[in-house]
Amino acid sequence: MSFRYDIRLSGSGGQGIILMGIILADAAGIYDRNYVAQSQSYGPEARGGSSKAEIIISDEEIDYPKAMKLDLLLAMNQKSYDDYYMDLKPDGVLIVDSTFVSQIHIQRTYRIPFTRIAREKLNKEMAANIVALGAITKLTNMVSQKAIEMATLARVPKGTEKINQDALKAGMAAALRIKKSIIPHIISEHEDEDT
Amino acid sequence: MSFRYDIRLSGSGGQGIILMGIILADAAGIYDRNYVAQSQSYGPEARGGSSKAEIIISDEEIDYPKAMKLDLLLAMNQKSYDDYYMDLKPDGVLIVDSTFVSQIHIQRTYRIPFTRIAREKLNKEMAANIVALGAITKLTNMVSQKAIEMATLARVPKGTEKINQDALKAGMAAALRIKKSIIPHIISEHEDEDT
Repeated sequence: MSFRYDIRLSGSGGQGIILMGIILADAAGIYDRNYVAQSQSYGPEARGGSSKAEIIISDEEIDYPKAMKLDLLLAMNQKSYDDYYMDLKPDGVLIVDSTFVSQIHIQRTYRIPFTRIAREKLNKEMAANIVALGAITKLTNMVSQKAIEMATLARVPKGTEKINQDALKAGMAAALRIKKSIIPHIISEHEDEDT
Repeated sequence: MSFRYDIRLSGSGGQGIILMGIILADAAGIYDRNYVAQSQSYGPEARGGSSKAEIIISDEEIDYPKAMKLDLLLAMNQKSYDDYYMDLKPDGVLIVDSTFVSQIHIQRTYRIPFTRIAREKLNKEMAANIVALGAITKLTNMVSQKAIEMATLARVPKGTEKINQDALKAGMAAALRIKKSIIPHIISEHEDEDT
């Protein structure tokens, strides 16, 4: 029985999406000992525009390294949500930074204000990506807490370990709060408000 | 007329290979305005082991994001050289960190002691990856000097801009020295000493 879990992280240019991808791949691959493939591709329009990173996690070597239908989509801004929500599997997990994403067509969405949390709790808006990594850890169980912590500390600049550890914790706490507040429900054809 | 240029950067776990891949992709994609795909994949054996990153540069959208036969291989240690030199195209460019790679079967190889340069000129062995990026810039002309500088400064930790700029310069200088010292020659069947 093999598994394959396809993840896309997306947002705007300055939000640290690619670093998130690297950390998540390290966590799942090096520390949790899965096979991972991590990639990003972009064109001449990338500057100041959209950014996306893909991670595939599997228990066997990965032949096709590009994400297919998504098990997890993180959208850190409205445009990336608009561009990619249709790539989710029917039972895929959607997480948005509700600081910037307000128009959502999929009811079953985890809405967490990553950027607001980073700004208010850590006084560092740029740590929103690490807050989101913490939330992903608790919302998906695809990486262990230990692995995401080790991978984060190994990749962030020296001297920023403490604030990034706090960012992870803030994201985990927010995820646990939202998980408690969501009543489990059966997926039905009313799931997507647009159809 | 479209072009596609396939690059693999390889070395051991702590040599900053993945950061190199990101910077090179940013330089070629965001700053030089090509299409790029950048990827890495690894398995449970990755910790402390080998590390590789692939970058594809094209003037059109990239369908297949995995490197095929290589136009450029950088090997920062002996194992990565041994594992990958056979993936080079016949006219591909091979660059090795001669601090660690001594057994070479391909005559037409650029041998530059990136790690020794980083240690002796910059007093920071860990900057060997950025020294290598500077050399790649001058040995391949696949990215512009301006682009690699901007991409490097945007990705290295705050406070390390100066040393990384010096690292790029040291790599470029080493590349120009070696280029001058190599007498152009016709590729012949004697090229590969092993055959």
